[in-house]
Amino acid sequence: MNSVIDFIRRNDRYLLLTHRRPDGDTLGSAAALCAGLHALGKTAYLWRNPEITGRYLPYTEPYFAPEGYVYDKTVAVDIASAPLLGAGWNGPVDLRIDHHPGSDGFAKIEHTDPSAAACGEVVKDLLDLLGAPLTKEIAAALYIAVTTDTGCFHYSNTTARTHRLAAALLETGIDAPGLNAEIFAKTHLRLAVEAAISANVGYRAGGRLAVASLSLSEKGEATEDDLENIAGLVQGIEGVQVAVTLREETDGWRVSCRTKKPYEANRICGALGGGGHARAAGAEIKGTLEDVRKRVFAAIGECCPGLLC
Amino acid sequence: MNSVIDFIRRNDRYLLLTHRRPDGDTLGSAAALCAGLHALGKTAYLWRNPEITGRYLPYTEPYFAPEGYVYDKTVAVDIASAPLLGAGWNGPVDLRIDHHPGSDGFAKIEHTDPSAAACGEVVKDLLDLLGAPLTKEIAAALYIAVTTDTGCFHYSNTTARTHRLAAALLETGIDAPGLNAEIFAKTHLRLAVEAAISANVGYRAGGRLAVASLSLSEKGEATEDDLENIAGLVQGIEGVQVAVTLREETDGWRVSCRTKKPYEANRICGALGGGGHARAAGAEIKGTLEDVRKRVFAAIGECCPGLLC
Repeated sequence: MNSVIDFIRRNDRYLLLTHRRPDGDTLGSAAALCAGLHALGKTAYLWRNPEITGRYLPYTEPYFAPEGYVYDKTVAVDIASAPLLGAGWNGPVDLRIDHHPGSDGFAKIEHTDPSAAACGEVVKDLLDLLGAPLTKEIAAALYIAVTTDTGCFHYSNTTARTHRLAAALLETGIDAPGLNAEIFAKTHLRLAVEAAISANVGYRAGGRLAVASLSLSEKGEATEDDLENIAGLVQGIEGVQVAVTLREETDGWRVSCRTKKPYEANRICGALGGGGHARAAGAEIKGTLEDVRKRVFAAIGECCPGLLC
Repeated sequence: MNSVIDFIRRNDRYLLLTHRRPDGDTLGSAAALCAGLHALGKTAYLWRNPEITGRYLPYTEPYFAPEGYVYDKTVAVDIASAPLLGAGWNGPVDLRIDHHPGSDGFAKIEHTDPSAAACGEVVKDLLDLLGAPLTKEIAAALYIAVTTDTGCFHYSNTTARTHRLAAALLETGIDAPGLNAEIFAKTHLRLAVEAAISANVGYRAGGRLAVASLSLSEKGEATEDDLENIAGLVQGIEGVQVAVTLREETDGWRVSCRTKKPYEANRICGALGGGGHARAAGAEIKGTLEDVRKRVFAAIGECCPGLLC
C-alpha cells in the first residue's frame, strides 16, 4: 500500500478507469476516489466509459472528464485483468486499485485486497491513509459501491468490515434508502422476466426441487443486465434445495443450478457437460424444452441420491 | 434502564412473551434475551406463542417453556400495547422491552427505545449492561431480529447503530447468508401472487405511474403473511414515482399507494376516503375493478398536477 500512497501523493492529473459492463462497485469506487482526490487538491476525472447505463449516470456524470482533458496518470478501479478494461480503452494503466485476486500485470503498480467485499472498502482504506475527509459526496459513492457488490448486505461476501464501513457512511447523513431504491429498482423487462419465470416454476420432491424456464419469446427484449442473477429467483423459494433455471438461447438452453447442502450443483451440471461450484453451476444443452427437462431430471436423479425417490 | 437492570438481576424464572402474528424481531429478540439470561445463570423460557410459523420454529422451539413450567415474572418483548399481546395470553406482564414509541401501561416496568431500528438493538444494549457474553447463539437470534425489521438493512429505519451491531454479530461467526436465505425465502403462494401482479402492471405518464391489481381468484389461498408489503413490488419498478396496488377483498378493493416526492400518497388516498403518510397510504373502495381504476386515476389527476397531462 505504501507505494500506492506514494504514487498518488507524487503525481497529479488522474484519469480513473472503470470495467466493462460497469456496475455500482467500479463506478461508485471510482467516483469516491475522484471526489477524495479533489478533496486532497488533486485534479482527477472519470473516463467516459461508453457502457455506463442510465441507472448510474446521475452518480458518475458530475465526475466525467471534460472534452480535451489531458491526463498524466491512469488508475484502473475494480478491474481484475486487461480484458475487463472498459470497452474502447487502449491507453496505458499506471495504477490498479482492486479487490479481485490475482494479476495479469496490466498495471505498473497494483494494490488488490481480496478480503474486501467491494472495491469500495479498498478505496475507503486508501482515502483514510491519504488523509482525505469522509464527505457526504464520497460517502454516497462508497455506499453505492458496497451495496451493489453485497446485494445490500445480503450476499456471503458481506463481513463485519463491510457493516462497519456502512455505519461510518450512514453517519455522514447520506440518503441510503433513496440510493438503494435507485440502485435496486427493477426494469420493466426484469419484472416481465420474473413474472414469466415465477408463473411456470414446477416443483418436485415435495418442493425440494424447483425447475423454471424462460423461452426466447418470454425473454423478449431483456438484456444481460435485465437477466443478471435471474437464477436467484428460483433459489429463493421456501423449501427449495435444488433450484434449476433453464434459459433459451438461439442455439440451445442454458442451465443454471443452485443447491443447498448436501446437493452439489457442479456434480449435476458436470453430468450435463458443464461445471462450476458446489452451490452454483451451469451447463449448456441443445434440444427442445421437453428433452432438456428430461436430461436435467436424469442428471439430478443420478447425482442427488434420495431426492427424487 | 437502571430499574430494568435491577429488576432482571433481582428476579428469576422468566417467561418471555412475543406479539401477535410474531415476526423475526419479536421472536429473535425474545430468543436472544432468553439465551442471554441463561448465560447469566437465570431460568428463562419463551411462551409458546400459538401463531409462530414454520419459518421461525427452528429458531424458537429450543427455547420453548417445558410443560408445567412455573414462571415467576413475565417479559413482553417488542410488544407495543396490550391488544398486541400474543393471541391467548391472559396473564400479567411484569416488564416490557421494546422499540415502539408510547405506552398504554400494560406492563409494570417499561423500557422502550424508539431510536432503535429493531427491538434486537434494545436487547443487545440490555444484555451488555447485564454483562452477558455475546455468544454465537445470542448473535444468531439478534441477527434474525435486526435483518427482519430492516429488510436486510434496506429500510429507512436502518442506522449506523444497526450496522455496528451487525458487525459485532458477524464477528461471532454466525452464518448470516444462511439466516437471510431462510428468513427471506418466498412461499409458493407469495411467488404466485408476485407473478400475477408483475404480469398485469400497467404504466402511464411515461412510466412514472404504475398500477397493478390482484383479484380474489389470483390471490387464491395466499395469507396475510404471504401478502406482506406486496405494495413494495410495484414501488420497486424503475422510474415509478406513483405506485398503486389494488387488492380485491370480499367486500371491495383495498388501494395501497406509494409515492416519491413531490407526489403525496396521503393526498391521493384522502381523495378516495382513506389516509396515511406522505410516502405510503391506503383506502378502501367498492365497485368493479374498472370503476376502481377510474376513481384512482381521477384522484391521481386531481392530486398530482402535471403527472397525467
